[in-house]
Amino acid sequence: MSTMKDVAKLAKVSLGTVSRVINHIDGVKAASVDKVQAAVAKLGYVRNDYARGLKINSSQTIALILPTIWNPFFAEFAYCVERELYHLHYKLLLCNSEADASKEYEYIKMVTQNKVDGIIGITYSEIDQYVSSKLPFVSVDRYFTEQVSYVSSENFKGGQIAAAELIKAGAKHLAYFGSYAAYKNETTKRHDGFLEYAKNHCQDVNDIFVPAPIDHSIDSLVNQLFDKDPRVDGIFCVNDTTLIEVEQALNKRGLSVPQDVQLIGYDGIMLTEDVSLSVSTIAQPITKMAKAAVEILLRKIKDPLHKQEIQILPVSFRTGLTTRHS
Amino acid sequence: MSTMKDVAKLAKVSLGTVSRVINHIDGVKAASVDKVQAAVAKLGYVRNDYARGLKINSSQTIALILPTIWNPFFAEFAYCVERELYHLHYKLLLCNSEADASKEYEYIKMVTQNKVDGIIGITYSEIDQYVSSKLPFVSVDRYFTEQVSYVSSENFKGGQIAAAELIKAGAKHLAYFGSYAAYKNETTKRHDGFLEYAKNHCQDVNDIFVPAPIDHSIDSLVNQLFDKDPRVDGIFCVNDTTLIEVEQALNKRGLSVPQDVQLIGYDGIMLTEDVSLSVSTIAQPITKMAKAAVEILLRKIKDPLHKQEIQILPVSFRTGLTTRHS
Repeated sequence: MSTMKDVAKLAKVSLGTVSRVINHIDGVKAASVDKVQAAVAKLGYVRNDYARGLKINSSQTIALILPTIWNPFFAEFAYCVERELYHLHYKLLLCNSEADASKEYEYIKMVTQNKVDGIIGITYSEIDQYVSSKLPFVSVDRYFTEQVSYVSSENFKGGQIAAAELIKAGAKHLAYFGSYAAYKNETTKRHDGFLEYAKNHCQDVNDIFVPAPIDHSIDSLVNQLFDKDPRVDGIFCVNDTTLIEVEQALNKRGLSVPQDVQLIGYDGIMLTEDVSLSVSTIAQPITKMAKAAVEILLRKIKDPLHKQEIQILPVSFRTGLTTRHS
Repeated sequence: MSTMKDVAKLAKVSLGTVSRVINHIDGVKAASVDKVQAAVAKLGYVRNDYARGLKINSSQTIALILPTIWNPFFAEFAYCVERELYHLHYKLLLCNSEADASKEYEYIKMVTQNKVDGIIGITYSEIDQYVSSKLPFVSVDRYFTEQVSYVSSENFKGGQIAAAELIKAGAKHLAYFGSYAAYKNETTKRHDGFLEYAKNHCQDVNDIFVPAPIDHSIDSLVNQLFDKDPRVDGIFCVNDTTLIEVEQALNKRGLSVPQDVQLIGYDGIMLTEDVSLSVSTIAQPITKMAKAAVEILLRKIKDPLHKQEIQILPVSFRTGLTTRHS
């Protein structure tokens, strides 16, 4: 097996030049790059990543930034990410950002200080300026630039499925209910897909689509919706926790789920492997999304010039107690 | 303000001796210890912990070991621990141990390598041999030795309250339902408190108290309980996730909650700050438990000879939909 020294000898350049070319570090003359690449090809040189791992300043630690681990969907995601990382001998640093940009930035800074090797981020704040094409960063549910890799689920299709399932279950007056983040992310496609499908099937659609956070105003938004159109009998909620709050607000108004109003959420929250929340929902493939995010991130850590990868994973409808089924 | 040099001069010992005495390092003659302590007292010397923090090999990182972050109770606990640590400029490393001793030991080893400064652990495996009195470790819900600090809630009293509340709500035939860990922890006191109260109030008590894990056998254990005594109408479950599984098993058997059988769990799981699981439960003061664990751990990190601290925090009954109330 050939070594970097063999490459340097054949290309007639210094060992440092070979190293810079192989590790994609800038500042090497184009002619030297060509010579090194020719020698690499001729010798069939393969970089020994294990030896490299021992030498470079690696913390073997990945930071996971998410709004709050308290949310069962994020908790399951963190569980899956940590399990993947553990098999690869990486540790997980947990950051509950609570959408605080300064907290998110702190973890990004840790990458530049070699305190963490990379970041998987479900982020909701204005951190675009810090997320460069060279940062080992994989985004979940949010597009930054053409350079930044991200993983998401089929949000648009999920919205379409939700509309189709509500109509199939007998709902005649649909509504969307959810908030959108200040910095646009993929979850707004749930809204777009739902409305598109409903309108194409000649359904009138009410639309509660307001800036986040809405936690403390869900009761009044539900009242606003039903004051405007008391016929609403099928609601697609942006996620499962919002669904639960909407159900509680409906109950306060004297409406029963699913008898009076049917609800479909998004996420597919499970409390444990065996215990689901029992809501009807568009389930995301969390295990696969976590695995994809970890794998893409490690490719980016190994090769800072690794191109953007996008993985949009399939969703499926899971029947629960909040829709009617014959 | 006096310095270590002033102390050395007055005590007529070397600076190294003063440092060893102040940092509780062994191997200093008793006579020298006395001299240093007298000088410290006379000068009113106070150790400058900030300067010390800059010098020692600190990672400013704490590992949190728990069975799985997927469980909403542990997720809320992790959320609270991370929030406390963040204010103190510490980072959180997350370990889902899944009760695997080798995984737990890996994190303990990281302390000795200065990769983490200390550990908060909700542990269920045989790691006693690794948890020494000098390890900066705070245990949750588990007693190791007289040297190891721990935080817990009033498990025994919680069991008593559960029995009292079921009786108050009209239950006549009580049962306990839960598992115990291979290495005894505080949660078995829930069982003991429940049985004690029930027996003192002349109730007959059925007792499903089996080795963990029971996830996949809950249906058959529920059937076993009701085949033996179909009159059971009030069950205290070891935690809230077990309660949900018991409720599902009862429904499969054609029994309704709370009409036929009333249930009380333990933990007080919340899905978010606003959304509860709606089960009747003995709620643990999670925020306070997390704060206590962090504070004790940081005292232990500052002073390796810090004595055992025990904090047992109060619980309270929270009414949900699984008990009957007039």
